[in-house]
Formats: sequence, C-alpha cells, structure tokens
Amino acid sequence: MQLGMIGLGRMGANLVRRLIRHGHDCVVYDVNADAIRQLEAEGATGATTLAEFAAKLSTPRAAWVMVPAGITGQSVFALAEHFTAGDIIIDGGNSYYRDDVDRAKELTGRGIHYVDVGTSGGVFGLERGFCLMIGGENEVVSHLDPIFAAIAPGFDQAPRTPGRVGEPSRAEKGYLHCGPNGAGHFVKMVHNGIEYGMMAAFAEGMAILEKAGIGRDHTGEHDAETTPLAHPEYYQYDIDTAAVTEVWRRGSVVSSWLLDLTAAALVEDPKLESFSGRVSDSGEGRWTVLAAVEEGVPAHVLTASLYERFSSRGEALFADKLLSAMRKQFGGHAEKPAT
Amino acid sequence: MQLGMIGLGRMGANLVRRLIRHGHDCVVYDVNADAIRQLEAEGATGATTLAEFAAKLSTPRAAWVMVPAGITGQSVFALAEHFTAGDIIIDGGNSYYRDDVDRAKELTGRGIHYVDVGTSGGVFGLERGFCLMIGGENEVVSHLDPIFAAIAPGFDQAPRTPGRVGEPSRAEKGYLHCGPNGAGHFVKMVHNGIEYGMMAAFAEGMAILEKAGIGRDHTGEHDAETTPLAHPEYYQYDIDTAAVTEVWRRGSVVSSWLLDLTAAALVEDPKLESFSGRVSDSGEGRWTVLAAVEEGVPAHVLTASLYERFSSRGEALFADKLLSAMRKQFGGHAEKPAT
Amino acid sequence: MQLGMIGLGRMGANLVRRLIRHGHDCVVYDVNADAIRQLEAEGATGATTLAEFAAKLSTPRAAWVMVPAGITGQSVFALAEHFTAGDIIIDGGNSYYRDDVDRAKELTGRGIHYVDVGTSGGVFGLERGFCLMIGGENEVVSHLDPIFAAIAPGFDQAPRTPGRVGEPSRAEKGYLHCGPNGAGHFVKMVHNGIEYGMMAAFAEGMAILEKAGIGRDHTGEHDAETTPLAHPEYYQYDIDTAAVTEVWRRGSVVSSWLLDLTAAALVEDPKLESFSGRVSDSGEGRWTVLAAVEEGVPAHVLTASLYERFSSRGEALFADKLLSAMRKQFGGHAEKPAT
Amino acid sequence: MQLGMIGLGRMGANLVRRLIRHGHDCVVYDVNADAIRQLEAEGATGATTLAEFAAKLSTPRAAWVMVPAGITGQSVFALAEHFTAGDIIIDGGNSYYRDDVDRAKELTGRGIHYVDVGTSGGVFGLERGFCLMIGGENEVVSHLDPIFAAIAPGFDQAPRTPGRVGEPSRAEKGYLHCGPNGAGHFVKMVHNGIEYGMMAAFAEGMAILEKAGIGRDHTGEHDAETTPLAHPEYYQYDIDTAAVTEVWRRGSVVSSWLLDLTAAALVEDPKLESFSGRVSDSGEGRWTVLAAVEEGVPAHVLTASLYERFSSRGEALFADKLLSAMRKQFGGHAEKPAT
Repeated sequence: MQLGMIGLGRMGANLVRRLIRHGHDCVVYDVNADAIRQLEAEGATGATTLAEFAAKLSTPRAAWVMVPAGITGQSVFALAEHFTAGDIIIDGGNSYYRDDVDRAKELTGRGIHYVDVGTSGGVFGLERGFCLMIGGENEVVSHLDPIFAAIAPGFDQAPRTPGRVGEPSRAEKGYLHCGPNGAGHFVKMVHNGIEYGMMAAFAEGMAILEKAGIGRDHTGEHDAETTPLAHPEYYQYDIDTAAVTEVWRRGSVVSSWLLDLTAAALVEDPKLESFSGRVSDSGEGRWTVLAAVEEGVPAHVLTASLYERFSSRGEALFADKLLSAMRKQFGGHAEKPAT
Repeated sequence: MQLGMIGLGRMGANLVRRLIRHGHDCVVYDVNADAIRQLEAEGATGATTLAEFAAKLSTPRAAWVMVPAGITGQSVFALAEHFTAGDIIIDGGNSYYRDDVDRAKELTGRGIHYVDVGTSGGVFGLERGFCLMIGGENEVVSHLDPIFAAIAPGFDQAPRTPGRVGEPSRAEKGYLHCGPNGAGHFVKMVHNGIEYGMMAAFAEGMAILEKAGIGRDHTGEHDAETTPLAHPEYYQYDIDTAAVTEVWRRGSVVSSWLLDLTAAALVEDPKLESFSGRVSDSGEGRWTVLAAVEEGVPAHVLTASLYERFSSRGEALFADKLLSAMRKQFGGHAEKPAT
Repeated sequence: MQLGMIGLGRMGANLVRRLIRHGHDCVVYDVNADAIRQLEAEGATGATTLAEFAAKLSTPRAAWVMVPAGITGQSVFALAEHFTAGDIIIDGGNSYYRDDVDRAKELTGRGIHYVDVGTSGGVFGLERGFCLMIGGENEVVSHLDPIFAAIAPGFDQAPRTPGRVGEPSRAEKGYLHCGPNGAGHFVKMVHNGIEYGMMAAFAEGMAILEKAGIGRDHTGEHDAETTPLAHPEYYQYDIDTAAVTEVWRRGSVVSSWLLDLTAAALVEDPKLESFSGRVSDSGEGRWTVLAAVEEGVPAHVLTASLYERFSSRGEALFADKLLSAMRKQFGGHAEKPAT
Repeated sequence: MQLGMIGLGRMGANLVRRLIRHGHDCVVYDVNADAIRQLEAEGATGATTLAEFAAKLSTPRAAWVMVPAGITGQSVFALAEHFTAGDIIIDGGNSYYRDDVDRAKELTGRGIHYVDVGTSGGVFGLERGFCLMIGGENEVVSHLDPIFAAIAPGFDQAPRTPGRVGEPSRAEKGYLHCGPNGAGHFVKMVHNGIEYGMMAAFAEGMAILEKAGIGRDHTGEHDAETTPLAHPEYYQYDIDTAAVTEVWRRGSVVSSWLLDLTAAALVEDPKLESFSGRVSDSGEGRWTVLAAVEEGVPAHVLTASLYERFSSRGEALFADKLLSAMRKQFGGHAEKPAT
C-alpha cells in the first residue's frame, strides 16, 4: 500500500523506514531537502513541493502529517489545498484532540477524510514498533489497516493477557481504533498523563532513597528556622540507586519500561550530574488535567506530576517569595540562606 | 500571681511584658544577661542561675519555658532539678506533642506537674494578646487561670459567634484547655498545619494573578519542548496584586489576618524583590502530616503546602534530574536551558 | 444615580436594597413577578418586560445583570436588543472571564459598553457590603463609580494597612478596577480558587483533630490488610472542635472570616450530623485550575481542594475500583468490607 | 543449603516450594498443622513446635520468618529463645525498617544475626521468582547467597540494561544487598510507595477515559450549584478501557507489569462491577510518606496516592461535611442531593 509522509524528523523518518521494511511504498516530503534525500536513499520516493507530493500519490491519496504540534494545523490545511474529495489526511503528531474535532469538521465539508493517530514509542519505535491510538471514521480506518499493522509492534511483542482468546484483536497487535475523530489523540493524551504520573512516582521514590543517609550528616544544631531530625539513627543508609532500579527490573511490582530506562540512565550517570533538572512538559499532560477538571474527575497524581515539572523550571518562585514575605510579616522570620 | 519565665527571646519577653501590664510578678532567666537586665528595667525580677531562679519563686512554683524547640527538653529537665513536688513547669514553645506526653510521664514520677501550651500570636502578640492552646491536668490548668487570662487576647477581641450565649467561655477569651498533656501542642500543631495551607492558597492564587499577562509576551514560537499557549488573547492582564489583596480585605470571603499581612507585604515590596523564595518550615507542618498519615485522614492540601516549602529550598532537584534523565532515554529530549 | 437590575434573587435583591439605602434609583426586572413586587414595596421601580425595563431607564442606560451563570450570556444579549449605543451592561454574576472578553467584543461592535464585576459577600453582603472586582473601560468604570461605592463595604470596614497613606484608594473602600474586560471576573475567579484552598485547609485540619482519639479505639487486632497504629498512646485526645475554632478567633494566625463561620457552624451542629458531605463546586475553582495549567503556575493546593470536592461526590469511584482490581490481580487481596 | 521457614501462608509456602525446586532443604513451622502437612507432602521437613523447629536445623541455623506484620516482632523474639549465638533470623515480611534496626540491635547483644528482606512478587512469585531487597551484615548476607539466588528471578528474567557488562551482579539476578539492617525493608518500603503512585496514575487516567462521554448526557440544565460543561461536543467518546490497556501493552511508554494486570482485570470485569472501591493500604505507603517528610523531600504523587486510598474508605467524610457547613454559612448553599 502507498502512504505519503510529511515531516521527516526522527519520528516521521522512522515510520517511513518501518513501512518500507514491511513492503509499503512511501512518498516523502520535508522542508529539509537532506532529510528527503536520506530517505530516498533508503527506498522512498521524494517530493520537493506539496504539489509534487500530491501528484505522486495515487487516489484516493493517504498522507501522514508528522510535524511539531505548533504547525500541524497549518500543515494539514496546506496539504488539503492539493487534495481532493475522497483523500485521507492523517495527523500522527501530538495534537490537541479538540483541534482534531474542529479540523475534521472543516475537511469533511470538502470531502476529505481526517484521521488522528496518537503515536507512542519514542526513539525505540523503529525496532519495537509504535503503539497507535486512532480516531476517525470506521471505513477510513479499515482502509488504512495495512499501514497501521505495519507500524504497530504486533501481537508477539507481549505475552497474551489471560482471558483473551481467539483471533487476536487490533489492540493485541498494538493499534486501536478508539472512536470518532479526536478519540485517538484523547487516548494518547491520557496515556501521556499517566506517563507523567508514573515518571513522578519513580522520581520521588528514588529521591527518598537518595536522601536515606541524611542522619549521617546530622549535626544536632538547631535554630528556630530548622526542624531537628528526631531520629538520625534511622537515616544512615547509602543506597546504590542504580542497583536498586536494576533489582526491581526482575520480579517486582514496579517493573516497567520506564524502570528499564531509569536503570539505564543511572548506569550512565549514577548521580545524574549531567542534568540540571529543568523538566519540560509538552502539552498532553496539561490537556489531561484540563479534561479531568472538566469531567469532574479527581486526578491528584497526574496533576501533581505536571505541577512538579512547572516547579522544576522556577515557576513557583513568586508564590515562594510571597510565603517568605508573609512569614516575615507575622513572625519576623528572615529567610534562611542556602548552605 | 507569680510566674517564672525561662527564655527571654522576642516571645518570652513579650509574655513577661504582658503579664507585668496585668499586674503579675515575673521572675526571669536567660543565658543572655542583657535580656535579663532589660526586663528588670521593665519591672521583672532577674535571676542569673537556675538555682537562683527557683529560689526566687514561691512554692508551689510555676515556671514557663520559652526556648527554641531543639533545647526545650534539656531546659525542662535542668529546671526540674531545682524544683520540688507540687511545682509546675509550663512548656510554651513549639514542642512536638509526643515529647509532652513523654516528659509529663517522667516528671509526674517526681511529683512535678507539666503543662504544655501552644502559643500563637507572633510579633503582634504583645498588643493583640496570644492565643493559647493548653494541655495538662484540670486542677493545674485551673490554678494557672489568671496567668492564661492575662496573656490571652480577651473576649472583646472578636465579635461573639452567633449561637454562643451566657458567661463567655475560656475559648471566647482566647485560651482553651484542650485536654491532657500533649493536647495543647497537638492543637497548636494542627493550627500551624492549617496556617501552612492557608498561606499556600494565597501564594498560589497571587502567582496566578501575577502571570495573568503571559499572553502579551507570547511570541508564537514553538518547538517540540514547548506547549504553545492556545489562547494568548485571554492572558492580557496586568494585575496590581497589592491592590487586589487590599480590596479583598473588605467584604470578601477570604478576608483574614493572613490577607492583612499579605496586603502589607505587597505595599512594602510589590514585586517581592527583597525575597529569594527559600521558605523554612519549622516542625508543626511536618508533624501535622505525620498525624494525618497515622490517623488515616486525607490531607492533600496541608501536605502539598509543606512539600511546596521543601521544593522552594531545592529539595526536588534529584527527582527533577531523574525526570530529565528518563525523558532523554525514551525520547532523546535534551533539557531546555533557562531563558 | 440610576441603575437597572435584572435578576432579583438573594444577591440581586440585596444589591438593590443597598443602593436604595444609599439614595440611588433602581429599576428592577425578574421573571418572578413576586420578586419585583417585593422590591417595589421597598422603593424600587418595577418593570415586567425587558422593553419596559429599557424604557424606564434614562440614557445612557446602565443595567446590572445578576442571574445564574448558565443563562447570563443569553440575558445580556436579550437586554442588548433593547439598548442603544452608549448604554452600559454590567455582568455582576459568576461568569467565566473569557465569556466577558467575547461578549465585550461583540457588544462594542454595537456601541454598547460592557463591564464585568466579580461580587463577593454572600448572605452577609447587605450589611457588610460587597467586595467588587471590576473589569472594563476606564471612563465607563469611572462613570459608574457612585454605584460601586454604594455597594462596596467602604473604607471603615477594616483597619488601614500599614504603609498606605493619603486619600484612600478605591481598593481601600472595597472595590477595584482590575483592568480591561474580563479582569474583574479573572480576579474574582482566583479569589474563589483561594477560598477553596482556605476552606480545605480548615476542613483537613479539623478532621485531624476530630480523629485525635483514634488510639482509644485501637484493638491491637491486625491482619494483612490493616496497618497497626504504632503508638496508640499518642492518639488519646477528645478534642472539642467547636471550642478550638472559637479560641483561634482571637490572636491566632488563622483568624479569618471563614474561621468565624466555621466556629458558628460547629456551635450549631458540633458533629455536623445535618450534613452528608456532598460538596458542590460552582465554576471558579475549576477555571482557576485551568488558568494555573495554561500559565504554567504550580497550584497544588488550589487544585487538591477542587479534587477533594469531586471526590466528596463519588467521582473517584471508578479509579478506586480499579485500584482494588489491580490489588486483587497481583496480591490476591480481596476488598475489606466497611466495619 | 538448609533453611527454616516460619509462616506458611501463601508467600511463605511459595518460598519453600521455590527453594525445594532448587534443591534446598526446608524445615517448616506454622500454627496451622494442615499447612505443615501440605508442605511435608511436597518434600519439606515439618516441625510442630519452635523447639522442634530449632532442633531440626543444623548450626549455624538460618530461619526465615514470614508472618503478618503485626506479629513479626513477637515471632522473631519467640524464635530467638530457641536460637544460639551465630544463628541467623531473617525477617522476610513487611516490617517497618525501624523495627529492623531496633531488633537487630537487641539480637546482636545475644550473638544472633538478623537479616531483613523485602520480598516482592505476590501470587506470581512462585513462577516469576521473588525480587529481594536485603539488609544486614556483609558476611551473613554472603553466607545466605544460595538461598537468595534460588528465590530470586534470575538474570534471564529481563534483557540486560545497556551499559552493564561483565559477570552479572546480584541486582541483575533479582536480589540486592542494600546496606546494613533496615536497608532491605527501607528499599522495599519505597518500592511500595512507588507502586502506590503508579497504580494511582493508571487509576486516574482510566477514570478520565471512562468519563470521556460526559457530553452525551449533558442536558444543558443549570443551577447555582452546578458548573455547566462549556463544550459538550468535545466529550462524546465511548472508550473501551479494556482495549486501551491492551493496546498500551505493546510499544507504549506506560507498558509495565501493572498495566498487564490492569488489562487482565478489565477483560474479566470491564465495568469493575465486582468491586466496591474500598482500597486498603498496608503500611509501606504510609511509611514512605513519613520518610519523605522527615527527609524533607517533596513527594506530592506518592502522598496523594496514599490519601486517595484513605478517601476511598470514607475517611474524608468529616472534612467534606465541614466544607458543606461553611458553604451553608457564607452562601446559604444547601447540599445538592445525589442524583
């Protein structure tokens, strides 16, 4: 089957490679000519303008847009100018699911089909396959099935879940039609929200282990601004966090891909000295919280994990200063300098 | 009535001054001779050793210990060496209520009475009076009633609560016998836990107001690490936070003493430039969380306000670095530098 | 000065009464004829249709809309049909500030001025005055100054903030022009967000006090599903929560209007037996969290207080069931029944 | 090698079975004679009294205690009565690490060695092996190495972490000597704290998916107590949560053992109708929070996940009632009944 790909960054290029490996034809376009040339060398057909791109696709055309979230909308509509009724545009990036709903409505008016795909897999997707969460019309999603099946990890990537029998479902092969437009990115959004929460759980826990020797440094000094540690004898440990994450990889309840990655990171840099601790957040975590609030669903953990990222970037500073200012007002407390 | 005071820091000295104003006799002791001399000049009787201090008190002696939390225990027991059966030692500092329980048990064996008093009021207590939360035996607390009544703010300090009638209770005069030993500091502990939560509520809210103009700086730039602001047109405000806290002081639901202080702080330093934002926590906030956990009572707000203080002092750094390390592993994301 | 009022519920009626007391003329309209008649008896001029309402106002007309949030938009635009260029519509309800921005844009096109006012004060506003947070054009807000001044609590309602000198500002009289359209409701939104956080701080703290006797019921029984209480001897208190809130009203750091109300509630019903604990949230708390997320400001406390309300209404049930389901899967743990 | 086992519940019995499979000798004791008989039939040597148990072990004896947390201490010391200098007692249960420190100190005085082992693996441990976190003296832990190696999952249970080379470490075989006494249970405690956080992340996320169709039920009704859903058109999904957890098992960032279990649970009972949602917590989650507070490490996520369990059991009720009581005071709001 033939698929066009717009956006040949790491993700887009790897999707193309995986499709080529599975025998599909790919027409590729990017603003960066080198990226096009590279994939031509690997078997793709290059196009240097959107017009040429559209012309090289046979109808009904199917094209996957894989560009940064901030320019996805304009890319979709620029492409639509060159497409005709019956063609399909797939947004595989990290779009806000509401934009999918709005775009689909607009494109439907022109007879163009829109499919939203949440794509998970990161730098490992080329080998592991990409987990796909899909939103769109039934027939259109079915038409694209060979594409999705090639990109997804496949049934053998995990042991079968007890209770599942018969012919493996799409979900068991690593791709799922989640519902009408927006449903794919909605599910991907929540996936990332959960990812934030899991990451924070590990990060907080490892930080508690890292400080388990605080009692050894305990001087017994005290002042009105410092809580003395009541029992320094219980905080005398020097935990090897890299070894701990390694041991948990086998047989423990927290074993997970994120744990595997954490173990790898701590082997590379056990004290994490190459990091400053400014943690970005890239949209889905925020949108997950907005959805929780609008649905009226308590999401303490997912939200706290997002706010911790904000704080890591200094965004709590004004609030912290105000706390110090209040303490000075009512208690005459001066701020205690960093030691 | 006569009371001894050990510890003539700001709080201890102001308690003595308030007692003298109400016609009570005070014997005072401190390691700092100047502090003793100062209060002698204001009408107190000084003592330069604990032995002299005990000798100058008539039996049954009553002495109030007002020293930093870290040395309260040793001060109480050092004093007890000079006291005899029937005497009373009052701990008016910020002790952990469990220490009260333990100390009372030990002193009871020697016939010495122990009273724990949580004291709120800060630098304004001399004029406003101090709110007192008291734990100890009924008869002992009753015996000390004139002392507590003099220190407390008194009935007129607030309009009467609807539904309360008849002779004003102690609580309506600003002091309360909360229960047996430890109860005073338990109630004070929770008071401070609530204080942390209220302070954080104001700090977070004011921070949201402070950033209400974020849409004006919005460049429209985007990259994979930044969530674009969807609707910059809704974040175009330049809020005068000092004026906002001022207007809320009259007729709003959040009017409170902490708001009064916040308004004063923002008049002094509207952008809070004199603060670095390192916020101390001094024991009670932590103990409140420990009690919540042991009681099995959810305390999301009080706990979050404590953790925000930890974060303000850089204690989230290891966790944040680990988040960046994980992101690098699965997505190849490099940290984005501060701008 | 003359003002029209649409919506004569508790809030709208009390605003009218306060204006009449200050010598202003009010034209009133409501779908409920009894409400109109009541206020006519108190000195207002009634109108039974919007056309009549508009006709009875002299130009430039000024009308305050005070209806439930869900129908404010339609009420504003229905009224605008009867208004002409130069007239003023004030939305004094609990609107989302973004709706203000949108409505103002639309009405400006017709030459009608729009003012958004966040109004705090509840059932006590008639006597205490209402705290007003105002958004709109400078000249329009200035034109309405006599109205706002009459509704607001006035300078004497609170002691002056240290550092403030000279002629009292509007903020010191209890009303504030916060900025262009939407700014009034933005500030009111954050006010309510803070209110949620403060309320939760009190609620959590009082719950910790309420359970301070848990050690007395401690049976020493244990099973794999129950954490034994390590030190029941430290949880032997029977705290009088009504008395505690009363004592804190005088001289403590947490003294506040919300504390006054809490003290009154606990006098009425010390065990709160007349409440089921289903806590509503009415918009501003949610919008505050949305703003925090969009601004990238951590708001752990304000958000947790909102989520606690969701949980109080059973909205955590699916998540809780899923936790039980996971525990059954990995540990064979059956749910423990309520005792 | 020979090992004694005290406590033949599910965990203890499976440990014995795994040891027998690996050719070790086991002497077993339990208060339940049937449990002894069952394991005798599988090749273990039974003992019906502690004296007999001690007599059947060759010196230096090594015995593993695997009983509920509430009676571990008394079991350890009862056993010690029958042990002599040089013998080893292993606590493999869910003890508080501080109890390990205290017990080890006491037993050391008698020449008895103490080893604390945190054991993870649940009902799957017999087949998967148990992940072991060990605290104790170096020589003693080395002496027990064959036992630990047999119980642990082994090197092949997970792909090797990039960067690890040479002879596999103990951690890579699924067991780790974490430090001196208490270190094993400290690491296990944090493991469970992280587990709580991860479980909550999934639970909250799935709850958001479960309610993604809230806009379909949206009636447009409104009252002062209900926030209208601003955009029901964006909440029109009917997500198959069982299929979603299944698709995430392949190639997604959240793939994990807990996800596998969640997928299995949702196949069995897609709407979770067999659960009431009362979620127990069994010690480690609480102790993790206590450690975070004492170390001064912010742990928003781990703590929130613990509090959500408290709330699931109705422990937020008093706080919720107080919120309703305050709302009634200031706004005259009556509680809204459940629908």
